[in-house]
Amino acid sequence: MKYNQYGYIKTDFDKQVKELEEINFLPTDWQEVTFSELLATLVENSLAEAKNYEAKKAKLAEFAVSDKQTLASFIAQNPEKIRRDAFYNVALQLLGYHVGYDYDLKAPTDRMNRNGLPYADHDIVDKSDLITAFYRLLNTRAKNGQTLIDNLAGRGYFTQFYGNNKHMFFNGKSLPVFDMSKVIREVVYVESDLDTDEDGQADLLQVTVFRPYQSNNFPIPALYTADPYFGGIIDNAQRNHNVDVNLEDATNSTYPKYEAMPKVKAAKPSSEDIAASEEAVHKAAYSLNEYLLARGFANVYAGAIGTRGSDGLRITGAPEETESAKEIIEWLHGDRIAYTDRTRQHETKASWCNGNIGMTGRSYLGTLQIAIATTGVAGLKTVVSEAAISSWYDYYREHGLVIAPEACQGEDLDMLAETCQSNLWDAGDYVKVKAKFDAMQKRLLKKSDRETGQYSDFWEARNYRHHTNGIKCSWISVHGLNDWNVKPKNVYKLWQKVAKLPIAHKLFLHQGPHYNMNNLLSIDFSDLMNLWFCHELLNVDNNAYKQWDDVMIQDNLYPDTWHQEPTWNNSLGQEVTYYPDKEGSLLKSGGADNSKVSFIDQGGKVFKEAKISESSWQYQFISGEEKWLNQQLRFETDEFIHPITIVGRPKVKLRVSTSLPKGQISVALVEVGKRKRLTPIPKSFNDQIQELGYRFGTEVMKEFVNDIETNAKLITKGHMNVQNYADMKHAKEIKPGEFYNLEFELQPTFYRVPASSHLTLIVYSTDQGMTKRPLEDETYTIDLSQSEIKYSQM
Amino acid sequence: MKYNQYGYIKTDFDKQVKELEEINFLPTDWQEVTFSELLATLVENSLAEAKNYEAKKAKLAEFAVSDKQTLASFIAQNPEKIRRDAFYNVALQLLGYHVGYDYDLKAPTDRMNRNGLPYADHDIVDKSDLITAFYRLLNTRAKNGQTLIDNLAGRGYFTQFYGNNKHMFFNGKSLPVFDMSKVIREVVYVESDLDTDEDGQADLLQVTVFRPYQSNNFPIPALYTADPYFGGIIDNAQRNHNVDVNLEDATNSTYPKYEAMPKVKAAKPSSEDIAASEEAVHKAAYSLNEYLLARGFANVYAGAIGTRGSDGLRITGAPEETESAKEIIEWLHGDRIAYTDRTRQHETKASWCNGNIGMTGRSYLGTLQIAIATTGVAGLKTVVSEAAISSWYDYYREHGLVIAPEACQGEDLDMLAETCQSNLWDAGDYVKVKAKFDAMQKRLLKKSDRETGQYSDFWEARNYRHHTNGIKCSWISVHGLNDWNVKPKNVYKLWQKVAKLPIAHKLFLHQGPHYNMNNLLSIDFSDLMNLWFCHELLNVDNNAYKQWDDVMIQDNLYPDTWHQEPTWNNSLGQEVTYYPDKEGSLLKSGGADNSKVSFIDQGGKVFKEAKISESSWQYQFISGEEKWLNQQLRFETDEFIHPITIVGRPKVKLRVSTSLPKGQISVALVEVGKRKRLTPIPKSFNDQIQELGYRFGTEVMKEFVNDIETNAKLITKGHMNVQNYADMKHAKEIKPGEFYNLEFELQPTFYRVPASSHLTLIVYSTDQGMTKRPLEDETYTIDLSQSEIKYSQM
Repeated sequence: MKYNQYGYIKTDFDKQVKELEEINFLPTDWQEVTFSELLATLVENSLAEAKNYEAKKAKLAEFAVSDKQTLASFIAQNPEKIRRDAFYNVALQLLGYHVGYDYDLKAPTDRMNRNGLPYADHDIVDKSDLITAFYRLLNTRAKNGQTLIDNLAGRGYFTQFYGNNKHMFFNGKSLPVFDMSKVIREVVYVESDLDTDEDGQADLLQVTVFRPYQSNNFPIPALYTADPYFGGIIDNAQRNHNVDVNLEDATNSTYPKYEAMPKVKAAKPSSEDIAASEEAVHKAAYSLNEYLLARGFANVYAGAIGTRGSDGLRITGAPEETESAKEIIEWLHGDRIAYTDRTRQHETKASWCNGNIGMTGRSYLGTLQIAIATTGVAGLKTVVSEAAISSWYDYYREHGLVIAPEACQGEDLDMLAETCQSNLWDAGDYVKVKAKFDAMQKRLLKKSDRETGQYSDFWEARNYRHHTNGIKCSWISVHGLNDWNVKPKNVYKLWQKVAKLPIAHKLFLHQGPHYNMNNLLSIDFSDLMNLWFCHELLNVDNNAYKQWDDVMIQDNLYPDTWHQEPTWNNSLGQEVTYYPDKEGSLLKSGGADNSKVSFIDQGGKVFKEAKISESSWQYQFISGEEKWLNQQLRFETDEFIHPITIVGRPKVKLRVSTSLPKGQISVALVEVGKRKRLTPIPKSFNDQIQELGYRFGTEVMKEFVNDIETNAKLITKGHMNVQNYADMKHAKEIKPGEFYNLEFELQPTFYRVPASSHLTLIVYSTDQGMTKRPLEDETYTIDLSQSEIKYSQM
Repeated sequence: MKYNQYGYIKTDFDKQVKELEEINFLPTDWQEVTFSELLATLVENSLAEAKNYEAKKAKLAEFAVSDKQTLASFIAQNPEKIRRDAFYNVALQLLGYHVGYDYDLKAPTDRMNRNGLPYADHDIVDKSDLITAFYRLLNTRAKNGQTLIDNLAGRGYFTQFYGNNKHMFFNGKSLPVFDMSKVIREVVYVESDLDTDEDGQADLLQVTVFRPYQSNNFPIPALYTADPYFGGIIDNAQRNHNVDVNLEDATNSTYPKYEAMPKVKAAKPSSEDIAASEEAVHKAAYSLNEYLLARGFANVYAGAIGTRGSDGLRITGAPEETESAKEIIEWLHGDRIAYTDRTRQHETKASWCNGNIGMTGRSYLGTLQIAIATTGVAGLKTVVSEAAISSWYDYYREHGLVIAPEACQGEDLDMLAETCQSNLWDAGDYVKVKAKFDAMQKRLLKKSDRETGQYSDFWEARNYRHHTNGIKCSWISVHGLNDWNVKPKNVYKLWQKVAKLPIAHKLFLHQGPHYNMNNLLSIDFSDLMNLWFCHELLNVDNNAYKQWDDVMIQDNLYPDTWHQEPTWNNSLGQEVTYYPDKEGSLLKSGGADNSKVSFIDQGGKVFKEAKISESSWQYQFISGEEKWLNQQLRFETDEFIHPITIVGRPKVKLRVSTSLPKGQISVALVEVGKRKRLTPIPKSFNDQIQELGYRFGTEVMKEFVNDIETNAKLITKGHMNVQNYADMKHAKEIKPGEFYNLEFELQPTFYRVPASSHLTLIVYSTDQGMTKRPLEDETYTIDLSQSEIKYSQM
């Protein structure tokens, strides 16, 4: 396991001394004590669990400098230097490694090399060496992935500073000097300008704040997570829409319009500021937030309209949703009124907030960051948007087809609205809002137009990318390259716009599916976020903008490997074109094969008979298992002799005819070859647990590791309605037997194809986990002379 | 889901009033206020999260009494009574049920009936009715399985009592009135009378104490968990012994002797009592303990000899292990010395402890409770021993064979000793103890005699059942009826002895494998333990001994169903005998078939080729899949017309001959029939989470639920070395082709066989997950005329 570290800031000796003295780690009289005394003191100061001098001293006997001698007996000899191996024997134990099992006392640097840990290139011969070695050690990632200083924090080192009313920093990062046993957890009600439940009153929005009690004494920044799931999740997945239905003629679409909901202007804030009178009962559940809470960043959660404790209706993806989620920031920034309870009698202010607000969150919670950022709301300084939707059409639709997010067949905007309409759970709200909710469900179902899958004004209003020019805050996007729930197109298309804005912008692409990455062991993501938020919300001069490259991409071939790139799109490589032929080859020269080849799609028939999961189907299907070969066309390259990287969005041209006056085409690009691949989801290291603060939350670390042999892996895919051949936004009639030219891009990727694998292009129709699954057979014919795939190769 | 509740104590009205007033739930002036005011107040007092009168009042609008009216508007009418349905509409919401999704405002009692919740049989017509209804409601299990009063605790209701220095009780159970944000977590070092590392000094044993700070002011009981895993687990499973080996001639056993380790008497305690100077870094991870910590029971953890922070060596199962684990109680009880650190300079006492000690823990941690209880150590008042080993021979051996615990093929005493020898992780200890550890590993391997599997003095010294007469404390055992790790024989044989002792004794048998049960939703186990420990350690008169029957057994056919029985053994039923015949039938009349039938065992050959898990193998094997039929003999009854229950230990007689001068016989009793069975492990209800205190730990609730259809389920099995035909403790030579009479009991059970299933008796040899897997084929022949199975039927 390599412990990559991008968050360590090079620091000169004087600054090292100053920082170490500030945290009481280095005694201010260090120039007067002997080398041996200083060595003992620095190790003792690393033993935060020993609470007095005698207890610390006693523990030195639990360390060894060699396979013959304990640290206690070494120090008893009053040494004037320490050999490098002896020092790192002690260091590895401090970092949580186990002698005998993890490292050999005869060769500690073997382990350090294996894990990519920094160490001195010489013996520690004087006190300056010792200070430098300890400064680096405190900033070295321990076995659990956290720096040693954070591990000391988890053992209570910083309780000595709980009385201070300020942030403290070490190597540019905020330290956990805030008492988590006294966190204030309060609930307030922000008044919206919306009246989505149409009762003539402005909707109230419940807001939950977790903040260190010290924020009563000095203002701190806020990390706001706009979380529609915060109040609870209504589990309606059993009632998802039936996808075992025939396609409909897409020309029937009425191209529905977006309709705005009524507004009722909120009152203006007065000078009243009464303390909150309600305590939070819902919990935070996002470890990155809690890690930062312990470091002096308040955590603010709100579900906004329709969620538990709030008025109104969920309207998935609509401008009203953006507005209501944004209004929380207006309150945090002092620009909007909030009340202590739902009777609107007493005003309460975010007087604990320094006016600098960042946002965090994954999936829907990442999505709302994009939505809010495009409003340019005052106070929002930065977002860290993970696995986010940038256009709701790209979440539930694609190129004129209904395309489900992975593992969500039959879900749609209306189902998600119900999932989050948690104010239904309180009977008082239920009695009031249920009829309105039922009407909104009908409206969302109708306007989202599952019948035809066509783009419309209804979806246009849910495309945040149209408003990126409004973005004023700095930007971090995080996305899994194997995220088939929120597909990578969402982050890719957004990134192309964000990267052109005059704002700092960063992108992390990991190998996971629909995941966050702050618990990955191979990268110090939490440290980077600490740097970032300190820079953006506390104005710390810590090089955060330049500390790592704009685009960090996790490798798909080797574990623990990250690529640093300037951007992410086709321009990183050279265009390559492949042509299919009737023998099933995919050739670099071609286009001369005039053959026409066909397959008969059988909808969901064979899949449902097989009683396998959607993911098993996909694996069997792309691997070329016999059972599925008659429902696809496969075109395969020769084995690659050298590894290549496919970057950006491959583009497919197909000339197609169908046997019915409607049709859906799917195209997958697959790496085929029997080899060991990385685990599809990161493996949990259950013995590697990070303390987020002291006596606070914890996080179990994970990483992608080499797994068992598999036959194939999906690189990317795409889907298109044949009726949209002429216009992605407008369907046309098609005639059975006539040929139409389709041209569309697949989802973006960054995929390294190893030598001795093949690339396989698969053309098919029903994608069991994503498309509708027709009940009728349909024959698709491809004219090979007009078909090709182009991609950008590094 | 039925929420069985055994822990509710019937309470008369005056006591209800008194208890409600004591916790400030019922205002002392309740006789003066109106019905309507009292109703409002009691609901408001249930809203612990609303911190002042206005906030509470505001929340009444979030409740509904009907599908037309909120509670706020109902109360505004100043009612003098409340209809039953209206009351329980509010009650269900308080209990955490969701209107619309979980219950219908038109018929709340439908839900209550379904979940077995208690409710009044009439409208609430006066204040006495209201008080009684609320008393019962506070003691009713909410949707998350916890009583409403515990749910209020989780929302901070009892913070108002944090300043009091006493336990408080409600319905006979201790309340969480202890501030968990200020728990003292300290480490001390108890001096043993042992010197297992043979350094001439008494071994020091690290002890970790978690206790409410209030215990500085008044003494409280201790719950001690003897936990060899507490300091960490050395993962050596990859190096388990090879089980793909031939059987050896068991007459080669040397029947090794137990050898004692040296002793060095600890110093006697003086009057010195210095506060602990080391804080705990290890964590507690057992929710039952934490639930009780919040209720005023200190949690004490110690791994004892050989574990991290302690001196000495692990000697799995040996009297030294018992002694070292017991010595912690001697310190808790004031009878043994402890120091603040490993330099033995300052003494420290458990002056916070009231001298009453209970024990908790599962598996090895349950085992040590049995071990310690047999010593009759002063101060130990009760044990709650879960999934515990009562004889180590019954854990790693059976009837002359090496038999692995489930999922632990190749593990043995020596491997487990290494697993727990976590003091190796600290280099200072490693340097000192490694050579002794290596020697002990060799000794354990040799003496445990994996070659022959024979019983010996070495194992005799590890059979706690020989010492049950020493037990002075009261007793609770908990075991899974499907625990194939610590097999049910361990608890069964112990129970037969414990049940005869003049002590209170209880037994819980659940449907799980190697599990605890305090997170099961179908039973209020935590409440029962609260009652029990209050009775035993705080002398509360709460009917704990009589509150539920001695033996509680979870049903295997229907979820959420518990049987109450007076005891657990064959005496509960009538003996039934079945005889196998050559047609493969199992008949009630028989013994007349003189046929001899054979099968050829192929060891692990076919299994390893199949590349399936041990559990898949077992399922296929007992289900009668074709692939495995030639390595077994199957005898099947007719379909049962009426359900029956098999209770206790079935006994098997087999007349066997073998083709080699050695052999292992396995016998399984299986219920065969295609039907839906309960999940083998309980399903997690991830939205049903219990707060263990306030701002403290949580527990996700689970339960066995109806699962998919399966073909068969193992009821019980047993294994025997053919060479032990004459004496279970001494092997004899056997000759190929000669017949020997085997007679042995299978593991105990309590199994309901439903109508339309068959009973199947399977005779085989290699049990892939448990026995050695020979490399050579062996033919086994059974003389049916001398073969039978007897069991006790209810």
